[in-house]
Amino acid sequence: MKYPLHLLKLIDVLKKLPGVGTKSAERFAFEMIGWSEDKLAEIAEVIKTTSSKLKHCTDCGCLVDAEQCSFCNTIHERIPSLCVVSMARDVFAIEATHEFKGIYHVLGALLSPIDGIGPERLNINKIKHRITAHQIEELVIALDSTLEGDATALYLKQELSALNINVSRLAFGLPMGSSLDYVDGGTLARALSARARF
Amino acid sequence: MKYPLHLLKLIDVLKKLPGVGTKSAERFAFEMIGWSEDKLAEIAEVIKTTSSKLKHCTDCGCLVDAEQCSFCNTIHERIPSLCVVSMARDVFAIEATHEFKGIYHVLGALLSPIDGIGPERLNINKIKHRITAHQIEELVIALDSTLEGDATALYLKQELSALNINVSRLAFGLPMGSSLDYVDGGTLARALSARARF
Repeated sequence: MKYPLHLLKLIDVLKKLPGVGTKSAERFAFEMIGWSEDKLAEIAEVIKTTSSKLKHCTDCGCLVDAEQCSFCNTIHERIPSLCVVSMARDVFAIEATHEFKGIYHVLGALLSPIDGIGPERLNINKIKHRITAHQIEELVIALDSTLEGDATALYLKQELSALNINVSRLAFGLPMGSSLDYVDGGTLARALSARARF
Repeated sequence: MKYPLHLLKLIDVLKKLPGVGTKSAERFAFEMIGWSEDKLAEIAEVIKTTSSKLKHCTDCGCLVDAEQCSFCNTIHERIPSLCVVSMARDVFAIEATHEFKGIYHVLGALLSPIDGIGPERLNINKIKHRITAHQIEELVIALDSTLEGDATALYLKQELSALNINVSRLAFGLPMGSSLDYVDGGTLARALSARARF
């Protein structure tokens, strides 16, 4: 016996969520079948209006729901540091640390030749323009410590070398609360070579 | 820095899915931000129309998307056994085994005094009526092996004792592929007391 057609559709739709396979989607779908018409309509409305209500700032790429970007709007209250991240989500993670008081630039992607993502996607000209316009003194590269993150960081450093600003990158080392026997060799090697006076 | 208002709403909506906490909902939401307006609208539509497109058969409680229930419609091709399950989802699981050729009755709930679910929710009269109307010879109780499932099974057995039909319940024992040292004591005890000639 097969599932009713609409149930198959609902499962299919839920499987589009990241990390959700058939089993989880079925679980979600059967739960949703028990929900009221109003609840389903409300949820549908929130999902439907997401693309119109949530925009990326055309200048820095951060997420905004009002007309004005809260970073670009308060740019003079912030220190002249520009933090380059790959996704808008990363901005929230960095802001939550309260360790950085500058502004952000969201790349939207990392260099990945295998996925056809080349340097033109990084829009280097806009970064250069912002560095000059806001008299940025330091560029903080906050990219993943992956092959793509490393490649993008190196590319940025080279491209911006003519601008005479300090370029830094997030430190590599032991994650907080880790024990040495669970840390991989690469991390341990980086932590050793970057050891600091204690 | 707080999330934009609509992002908070979206996360809130996604957290209603079973087993989805804040972290997963955030992951879903940030993925959805990258989806096209069309994709979001399509998903919203499927969710919104779920309550109108998926109904429970008024007779047996199974899920139907057409006007006619595929079980109630073919009742004369099926053997006179009635399988009692708690949720419509269970019907699909049992059908997938190809071990049962009868019809179903979906209770929709299990007895649970702590949640205020009493015997009136089981609608015993409808079950009795269906047993008589379809000349059912065997009642197969396919309920969870939980406190609520046990209570409901016992209640059904007592209430239907006057009807003079065979009442059976799913067997208890080792799950397939289990090893004894991982099986809990209760399961092992049931498997032992119900041991069969080999």
